[in-house]
Amino acid sequence: MAGVVGVVAEYNPFHNGHLYQLQQIKQAFPDDIIIVAMSGNFLQRGEPACLDKWTRTQEALQNDADLVVELPVLACVQPADRFAFGAVSLLSALGADKLVFGAEHSSYDFMSFARKVAGVHGEFHKYDESYARSFQTAIKKELGHAVDQPNDLLGLAYAKANYRLGEPLDLFPVQRVETSYHDQSLHKGAQIASASAIRKNFSLSKKTQKKLAPYLPQVSLNDLVEGPFVSWDDFWPLLRYKVVSSNLADLGQIYGMSEGIEYRIQEQTQRLPLDINFDMWVKKVKTKRFTYTHLARLAVAILLNISEQEVQAYNSEPYIRLLGFGGDGRKQLSRVKKNCPFPIYSRVSQDDRKEQLAVDYRAGKIYQLFNGVEQDAKRAPIVF
Amino acid sequence: MAGVVGVVAEYNPFHNGHLYQLQQIKQAFPDDIIIVAMSGNFLQRGEPACLDKWTRTQEALQNDADLVVELPVLACVQPADRFAFGAVSLLSALGADKLVFGAEHSSYDFMSFARKVAGVHGEFHKYDESYARSFQTAIKKELGHAVDQPNDLLGLAYAKANYRLGEPLDLFPVQRVETSYHDQSLHKGAQIASASAIRKNFSLSKKTQKKLAPYLPQVSLNDLVEGPFVSWDDFWPLLRYKVVSSNLADLGQIYGMSEGIEYRIQEQTQRLPLDINFDMWVKKVKTKRFTYTHLARLAVAILLNISEQEVQAYNSEPYIRLLGFGGDGRKQLSRVKKNCPFPIYSRVSQDDRKEQLAVDYRAGKIYQLFNGVEQDAKRAPIVF
Repeated sequence: MAGVVGVVAEYNPFHNGHLYQLQQIKQAFPDDIIIVAMSGNFLQRGEPACLDKWTRTQEALQNDADLVVELPVLACVQPADRFAFGAVSLLSALGADKLVFGAEHSSYDFMSFARKVAGVHGEFHKYDESYARSFQTAIKKELGHAVDQPNDLLGLAYAKANYRLGEPLDLFPVQRVETSYHDQSLHKGAQIASASAIRKNFSLSKKTQKKLAPYLPQVSLNDLVEGPFVSWDDFWPLLRYKVVSSNLADLGQIYGMSEGIEYRIQEQTQRLPLDINFDMWVKKVKTKRFTYTHLARLAVAILLNISEQEVQAYNSEPYIRLLGFGGDGRKQLSRVKKNCPFPIYSRVSQDDRKEQLAVDYRAGKIYQLFNGVEQDAKRAPIVF
Repeated sequence: MAGVVGVVAEYNPFHNGHLYQLQQIKQAFPDDIIIVAMSGNFLQRGEPACLDKWTRTQEALQNDADLVVELPVLACVQPADRFAFGAVSLLSALGADKLVFGAEHSSYDFMSFARKVAGVHGEFHKYDESYARSFQTAIKKELGHAVDQPNDLLGLAYAKANYRLGEPLDLFPVQRVETSYHDQSLHKGAQIASASAIRKNFSLSKKTQKKLAPYLPQVSLNDLVEGPFVSWDDFWPLLRYKVVSSNLADLGQIYGMSEGIEYRIQEQTQRLPLDINFDMWVKKVKTKRFTYTHLARLAVAILLNISEQEVQAYNSEPYIRLLGFGGDGRKQLSRVKKNCPFPIYSRVSQDDRKEQLAVDYRAGKIYQLFNGVEQDAKRAPIVF
């Protein structure tokens, strides 16, 4: 019987690396359906998506994805372990039996690692290092070797989520090639570049477009050119305003605000000269306990005005939002719909906006301030 | 014995009309000291000041004002009656025995009007007209004639405040000449234009400067040119973000939010195309119950994140903030300091920023986002 492969993705933007991954899946599991759990307009690493979720969904559907669902923004603002748990439970609820993901070390037996470190935590109370670093130290102690590459760590987070859920998925790590996650340069002759290298090098000039062409499907390049290409540069003035205009008690209610970091954030922000950008702001606010990514993610929570309670409400009652599907995706939906443990939304009604989808709707409205396109109201899933 | 004249002003910007008023006071009361209670960076009619409070203070001191104090932003976001009460009590606390103000009908006996209408209120529960209009109807019934011109109404509000305070001030209405409050055009050959006409016609072109020169002291024109000239155009994107990013419960906590207008405000704002401006926004949100000015003032409260509690705290414990003084102003300060019923701040300490001056400090930080100049921390009063 044909199976169902799950993929967790951002597609920020959709490039050749993503294309090859989907093609490899089709080769390895030619009869399987591919479900992509994609972050919406704000991403777990703490930034707005460069193109909106509909554009990126369309790109995925044109390149072998059968069904694209949105990882709710309340999953995306959480740290890796919780983000991974959200993604894996959502894919499993949609009937996935495999999870394919890129890893720096595809030879790792992630499930066996996960079983060993399931009970391992970092030390929350070490004030001179970040939780992430202390967690890595604990893992190393348990496994006898480090797991410290970004995709390996995310793979381990998926594996732990899978373990917690009773291992509904078989894990298939795929070796990442040619580029590292953090590599921001384009390598001549290569066909794959990191998404951040592509974003960093993108501009509207013809020359840039020619330079980027080897690394992206043509449709993705066209989408980038059509844009609008959104970044922290756009949202930074709003974030800054939000930080200086909030009183400290309200700032303290934002999800992820801990250890009194709101005092530091507000004070530093009040003091900064007006010509700094988001990147400089993070570096100014950073401490040994709060890494760049941690603060960037916190910045998304501040920008979107997300409270601790809203995140807890999502964690206790997750849901699925359809972004698009082809014929096979639709069949898979019909198969699982009846027994799916989570509600599946295909549209956002007036009531949904005020209830379970309120935060996604709010995030969409904020994204729309620069993207200009309605993200939720009256938007139906893309039928491919 | 020499007396003390109080003036309530915005100086947005300081023009010939203001200059003549101060000169007239000097003529009428040559030995008196002039104290100006000036709105800070956000004004009671619901807009940011075009130039910051320090620049406008300097202009006033150069033109016969002896002492300039700031009307705290928490006074400025309140409706006319409460705004007037804040201004009159502050001037009286500083020893003023006269209040000079412009009026469309300087022949009115404002104090006698005030005594007659002291107990008169509008009907809050008439859902098809604004409170302001219903109040005017009630006044007309009581007095036998309308009081419906903007400066006359403000004069009546001062008189009512004075009545409530036991009439510490003698009122001197001065006939407004040559221009009406709402007149937005410049009249050739005239020397006075309304502040809004000046703001509306201002631009950085040499031609504009020449056109405006007859209506302003040279120093004011220079200040406008030096700028930065701030307006709702600057703050509008932040206001819009604030409205769409807030949840309704928080929006409902903003000072002045009543009758569920927050629902209408958020819904209309979510729906509007991206290319509208502040003015179009107000017109879209307006109802029969909420006038343009009412909504503009509410917009300032939203932008500055001012809560009902913060306003109540100010009303029960007012304070005075010094912006600048000359020799006579300093002498007046020494005279009243000891027995002044309100605390007088000359600087904003670290603690003040978190305590009584927190909202002024916040408003300053928000204004600074476009003005670029620190408004409070380490700023001492201007000594002229």
